[in-house]
Amino acid sequence: MPEVEIEEVRRFMVESLVAAGAPVSEARAQADLLVYADIVGHYSHGLNRLELYINDIKGGVTVPNEKPVILKESAATAWVDGMDTLGATAANFCMDLAIKKAKECGVGWVSVKRTSHFGMAGYWAKKAEEQGLIGMAFTNSAPIMVPTRSKKSACGTNPLAVAAPALDGDSLVVDMATTTAAMGKIEMQIHKEEPIPDGWALGPDGKTTTDAQLAFKTAKLLPLGGFENTSGHKGFCLNTMVEIFCSGLSGSNPSHKVPAWTFNQETSPNLGQCFAAIDPQCFAPGFGERVSECLKHWRNLESVDPTLPVLAPGDKERDIRRTTTERGTIVYPQAQIENYHRMAKSIDVKLLRVMS
Amino acid sequence: MPEVEIEEVRRFMVESLVAAGAPVSEARAQADLLVYADIVGHYSHGLNRLELYINDIKGGVTVPNEKPVILKESAATAWVDGMDTLGATAANFCMDLAIKKAKECGVGWVSVKRTSHFGMAGYWAKKAEEQGLIGMAFTNSAPIMVPTRSKKSACGTNPLAVAAPALDGDSLVVDMATTTAAMGKIEMQIHKEEPIPDGWALGPDGKTTTDAQLAFKTAKLLPLGGFENTSGHKGFCLNTMVEIFCSGLSGSNPSHKVPAWTFNQETSPNLGQCFAAIDPQCFAPGFGERVSECLKHWRNLESVDPTLPVLAPGDKERDIRRTTTERGTIVYPQAQIENYHRMAKSIDVKLLRVMS
Repeated sequence: MPEVEIEEVRRFMVESLVAAGAPVSEARAQADLLVYADIVGHYSHGLNRLELYINDIKGGVTVPNEKPVILKESAATAWVDGMDTLGATAANFCMDLAIKKAKECGVGWVSVKRTSHFGMAGYWAKKAEEQGLIGMAFTNSAPIMVPTRSKKSACGTNPLAVAAPALDGDSLVVDMATTTAAMGKIEMQIHKEEPIPDGWALGPDGKTTTDAQLAFKTAKLLPLGGFENTSGHKGFCLNTMVEIFCSGLSGSNPSHKVPAWTFNQETSPNLGQCFAAIDPQCFAPGFGERVSECLKHWRNLESVDPTLPVLAPGDKERDIRRTTTERGTIVYPQAQIENYHRMAKSIDVKLLRVMS
Repeated sequence: MPEVEIEEVRRFMVESLVAAGAPVSEARAQADLLVYADIVGHYSHGLNRLELYINDIKGGVTVPNEKPVILKESAATAWVDGMDTLGATAANFCMDLAIKKAKECGVGWVSVKRTSHFGMAGYWAKKAEEQGLIGMAFTNSAPIMVPTRSKKSACGTNPLAVAAPALDGDSLVVDMATTTAAMGKIEMQIHKEEPIPDGWALGPDGKTTTDAQLAFKTAKLLPLGGFENTSGHKGFCLNTMVEIFCSGLSGSNPSHKVPAWTFNQETSPNLGQCFAAIDPQCFAPGFGERVSECLKHWRNLESVDPTLPVLAPGDKERDIRRTTTERGTIVYPQAQIENYHRMAKSIDVKLLRVMS
């Protein structure tokens, strides 16, 4: 498969976003978010999504020159209007605010309406973690998850992320949709021509399906836990928790009113998102040591299969990040490269340079 | 099965705790917590646990006359030493503090070490919800959950609870262990002489088991999501999030060092717990309306099985609570009543009066 140098991916993203109408600073921030996802192996949230963001700008649904606005503020909280800016613009604004408040009074809790897709939730939680804080990020999204017992999708995949700093640059990073599997995982099974496990998704009749194509078309993902006898209702509960932090606090669309993200978006998604930071220094001394001690304890557990070691949350992404940055390149499917050549020509941007 | 009037259960709990050495005010608070669990149908966390609390007091592991102490404080945070008081004493202290801080600056985030079992997590989240706030409660616990891929248990069931107020006294209440099933559910399968579903627990060999007896003895619960192909690692991730809020922030025992709760406890469990409150009034007006709108949307979804309606988080407990309070009595197994007759005699407390 074609390889592209990391910095070339970033160059291409920035120039494409600028060509579509984004200010350079915001294009850079958005590119950093998308490149990061590709670097840690979350390919669905990287270059794969660039064209959607660009189309949203071209269609006037995203307004990249706007700036988010604080509508209400207290010592530890803020309510923000994202003003339909790029996802990274609003998320940087909100997470910076949460970090500032956490440093001032121990916690910062910020909820934002009228915002766009913010990519990998973990990227935002990690932003606070890199400053020695616990970071959290939540977003709602278009309804493709089926509440327990329901026939119909009514909730987003509503991911949540939490990151906590450990010693020597180590960290704990949770970044998960509250569905059993993300849609991207079903797509991967389609590409591999393999069925999906029982408990990932329903077919049109509201019964379980293992047919990846059918599951993809039907868009009825099950909550984390799967069916009720394996506690799928707990995944639904978590999903609703994310919903109240996002649309509940911010007054955005609830997930069941968020339009699906398409290539010709007609209205603002008006997503709700929530960002939080907590300063561990306000609690018992030695937080980093304790997080490190737990990480070490979990990583050293004997595994059932000796070839599959126990991983702490975030280890998989850290390993892929190391490999990717050492190699200096990101690998994309040929079809994706060709698609972006087509897009580049349409907006008059220099083609993505693939390594020979 | 024998029925006991609700107020008689409360009377019995208070007198038993006082006989063991608790001050009346703390005995009442602890009884309110335990009676509530029985009223909403969480029988494992109600009268069922009274004897454990009493033995902890008699053994000197719980010191019911102590008072929790604030060790460090900022506008939105507090670090508390629970001083090995009764679970309800420390939890009331911490949640009251979180509520006060949320009313002052938007958020209150309190983490406590050296505390005992706080019963149903949802009871504490609901305490904030009843004051118009979003409430959250977390606790770690003795290691009976197996991290994904591990052969051995290393994490507690680490429950989390979130409650949010809706209109007209309605609410959303999430209250869940981060394991697929609680140990109490495995016990229920033993009583019914039925197997457990695949994905609840491992046997001694680290492989899945459906044998309820074996699962109970082995104490290797799987995280929410079950095995890795159905995203059990996400349940493990959530579990670690609870861990860092509890032991990470407070400096208590991490779950892997918490002693199992037995009838002759020798050392303080030194659990870590975390309580948070967020004031929705610091965000977009109309929070209650939006929570109500979501609850209504979910409850009105067409269900796969018409006899099993879609429930919003907390609906099941609300229904049981209504039935129990209308009936005015709680039903207990005969063996449990006899056990408490025995205990009552040993501490010279008037027997639990069963209805004729």
